Amino acid sequence: MTTKYNIVSIIRKKRDGKTLDNEEIQYLINQYTADEIPDYQVSAFLMASYLNGLNDEESAALTESMLNSGQIVDLSHISGKKVDKHSTGGVGDKLSLILAPIVAAAGVPVPMISGRGLGHTGGTLDKLESIPGFKVDMDLARYKEIIENHDLVLAGQTAEIAPADKRLYALRDVTATVESIPLIAGSIMSKKLAEGIDALVLDVKAGSGAFMKTTDDAIELGEALVGIGTQFEKETIAYVTNMNQPLGYKIGNWLEVEECIDAMHGEGPDDIMEITYLLSGTMIYLGDKAESVKAGIEKSKEMIESGAAFQKWLDIVEEQGGDVEMIKSPQKYPEAEYEFEIKAEKDGFVSEMNSYEIGMASVELGAGRKKKEDDVDPQAGIALTKKIGDKILKGETILTGYTNKASAIEAASDKLFGAVTISKTKPEEVEMVSHTIDKEGSRAFEL
Amino acid sequence: MTTKYNIVSIIRKKRDGKTLDNEEIQYLINQYTADEIPDYQVSAFLMASYLNGLNDEESAALTESMLNSGQIVDLSHISGKKVDKHSTGGVGDKLSLILAPIVAAAGVPVPMISGRGLGHTGGTLDKLESIPGFKVDMDLARYKEIIENHDLVLAGQTAEIAPADKRLYALRDVTATVESIPLIAGSIMSKKLAEGIDALVLDVKAGSGAFMKTTDDAIELGEALVGIGTQFEKETIAYVTNMNQPLGYKIGNWLEVEECIDAMHGEGPDDIMEITYLLSGTMIYLGDKAESVKAGIEKSKEMIESGAAFQKWLDIVEEQGGDVEMIKSPQKYPEAEYEFEIKAEKDGFVSEMNSYEIGMASVELGAGRKKKEDDVDPQAGIALTKKIGDKILKGETILTGYTNKASAIEAASDKLFGAVTISKTKPEEVEMVSHTIDKEGSRAFEL
Repeated sequence: MTTKYNIVSIIRKKRDGKTLDNEEIQYLINQYTADEIPDYQVSAFLMASYLNGLNDEESAALTESMLNSGQIVDLSHISGKKVDKHSTGGVGDKLSLILAPIVAAAGVPVPMISGRGLGHTGGTLDKLESIPGFKVDMDLARYKEIIENHDLVLAGQTAEIAPADKRLYALRDVTATVESIPLIAGSIMSKKLAEGIDALVLDVKAGSGAFMKTTDDAIELGEALVGIGTQFEKETIAYVTNMNQPLGYKIGNWLEVEECIDAMHGEGPDDIMEITYLLSGTMIYLGDKAESVKAGIEKSKEMIESGAAFQKWLDIVEEQGGDVEMIKSPQKYPEAEYEFEIKAEKDGFVSEMNSYEIGMASVELGAGRKKKEDDVDPQAGIALTKKIGDKILKGETILTGYTNKASAIEAASDKLFGAVTISKTKPEEVEMVSHTIDKEGSRAFEL
Repeated sequence: MTTKYNIVSIIRKKRDGKTLDNEEIQYLINQYTADEIPDYQVSAFLMASYLNGLNDEESAALTESMLNSGQIVDLSHISGKKVDKHSTGGVGDKLSLILAPIVAAAGVPVPMISGRGLGHTGGTLDKLESIPGFKVDMDLARYKEIIENHDLVLAGQTAEIAPADKRLYALRDVTATVESIPLIAGSIMSKKLAEGIDALVLDVKAGSGAFMKTTDDAIELGEALVGIGTQFEKETIAYVTNMNQPLGYKIGNWLEVEECIDAMHGEGPDDIMEITYLLSGTMIYLGDKAESVKAGIEKSKEMIESGAAFQKWLDIVEEQGGDVEMIKSPQKYPEAEYEFEIKAEKDGFVSEMNSYEIGMASVELGAGRKKKEDDVDPQAGIALTKKIGDKILKGETILTGYTNKASAIEAASDKLFGAVTISKTKPEEVEMVSHTIDKEGSRAFEL
């Protein structure tokens, strides 16, 4: 690296709303990763980027620098197009656990690297680890071995993948610079592009339980993600989906695994299955195992009906060290020590469920983390009895909370009680998917 | 301090353009000074403050927190109103050295704490230290002793004065967050308010050699400074003065001391004397030793003509350990090893002098610092032969450079040559003082 660049000048340029060139961004990320630039200068840059934005080229340069800070997995020896899915995170979002076995069972390799829960949203890794013995930490050799054997691997981010993103993300978390669309997009895509994929499906969530509260913001993020994917020549399709209430009926790590097992037995809730099939269908289509998304959806349903998806799930749980007996007989799983119910105070219809508050209540109960270092409790969580649009009578149970921390019950109950609105009239039905975004741009969703 | 506050929430609030309350700012500064908040969070806050601004109340709270981070000198046992002057910095700005003895000689105590040069502007301390033996570092006991004996002290900022500002300033310097009006105002005022003053006169410079390039920015800074002074119940008057060419004819540490000695002998250049008398006259007026600024200016002239100011200067140099013989016979001072001249390439009038470039050339020659750790060369600098409006003939000398670093001559010559514009027509005369700002607001200057 030449000494042509100067970090204070780079910060100043972004502060003044100017556009950084690729080399400047590369210099910043490389020097930061090499410990040549201190955190305090990068955090000033992050805040300037948050407030003044990064354009598409800057965002792509940031992604590329972070991608190149670590290893890029080469899966070219595995035949077929490798396809992954990423969700921007929501409450009760367990779709990865259902769709990954579906897609792999349909013959499309799925190299999936997931994250842990932070804030109000759960993380795929925490859900997987609620299965006794299940291992998500592995080196790249083992990662390759598993996907070769099963067309599927469910792993955590290793230190070898995009280390610059890992550092940058930790810094953003403590400097109030997380919620920036170009920074979020760069962070997601640097990890996904390192996985060795050929195509990517994105589930961009919008609503009270999502990071993007409005559909407009979700579209903007989706466009940023698809823009980067396209620049890196990966077929990328994003859907904007509804996160104004939790997905399905279960929130919490093992509770969600249970719901996934039901789904793989063909007994999943409608909202979960609608989005799962859309995403898995799109993955199968992008993986060249179906002629269209519609055909991919049909194939997905076959994978559930035939039991092939569940068998794939049993295989991968066994391969990654999980207790297969628990998957076969989930009723054997030990229950949380305490449970409590939230009941309706009047007759009416459930008209709103503040998913953010419900997510935070589940964190309170032990299902999520307040700080990165916190452990999560696999048994803690929430089971809904009712969802938006359901009729309810005074005294009926809306939801049940599970926890091993008696001290958490009061605060969580208050949160949960306040999170549910009951009104006299039945609310309008919400559409689960609102927009499709691909390299042609964004448009209203239509299958 | 309660745990009610959370640094990430404070950063987020400022990031989102909201107003912080006093306690939040106090928490941030106190915890930072106590090493409980890391640099990387404060730099994110600084960038958010730079881009979203701080209002008057926030700026006052910041000033107060920084002021209270250290000792506040109590000079109440010294009779009379204590008055200081602060300049926002310019090229050739040596006025403190002339006006402080004038004001003290007129019976107004001047407790003056100054800074060192950084960037293109010189610093009063560096100029004082060019006098062999002169000491600016002292503890508070010695500071009080000197002002008691002489109605004057010329000191450097001790570790006891506003340590939070010292840390914050160092962080701003490396995170491109220096040039923010509320941050500049808070930094200046926290130090000045700690000195034990009753009133303050501010010289806010505008132009190519100042930090504020435009008169509008200078007025904004002046208003911020006066606003803070007024909130702290100190009489504060600011003037916006011209810095489109260096003040006087000398730039460089000892060179400027020489020019000050001439000024104290009644032989100062017109531009220097005009502003010096205005500032000293205002200080004498605020110190209740004159009925009006105009009367204060008359008194200032008397202090020069009677030799009282020069005698005060000799006394303070002796008290602070300086070599009085050098002040009496400045021609004894050793000269720099190298000198070089910049000559006119055509006939005409000097129409522009880029003071920033001239200041940077003097840094190059050794008179200033590129990094905080650098030593300054007391002999290095520039002597102008011509100033804006002067007629010049091809081949005549515009200025002479002095240095002990032969290697610096070429780069400095290029800078200096490019900094001076010669045009065919005589430029309009510039007014040295454009605006007065006091608690009533800002208005065009009129004596």
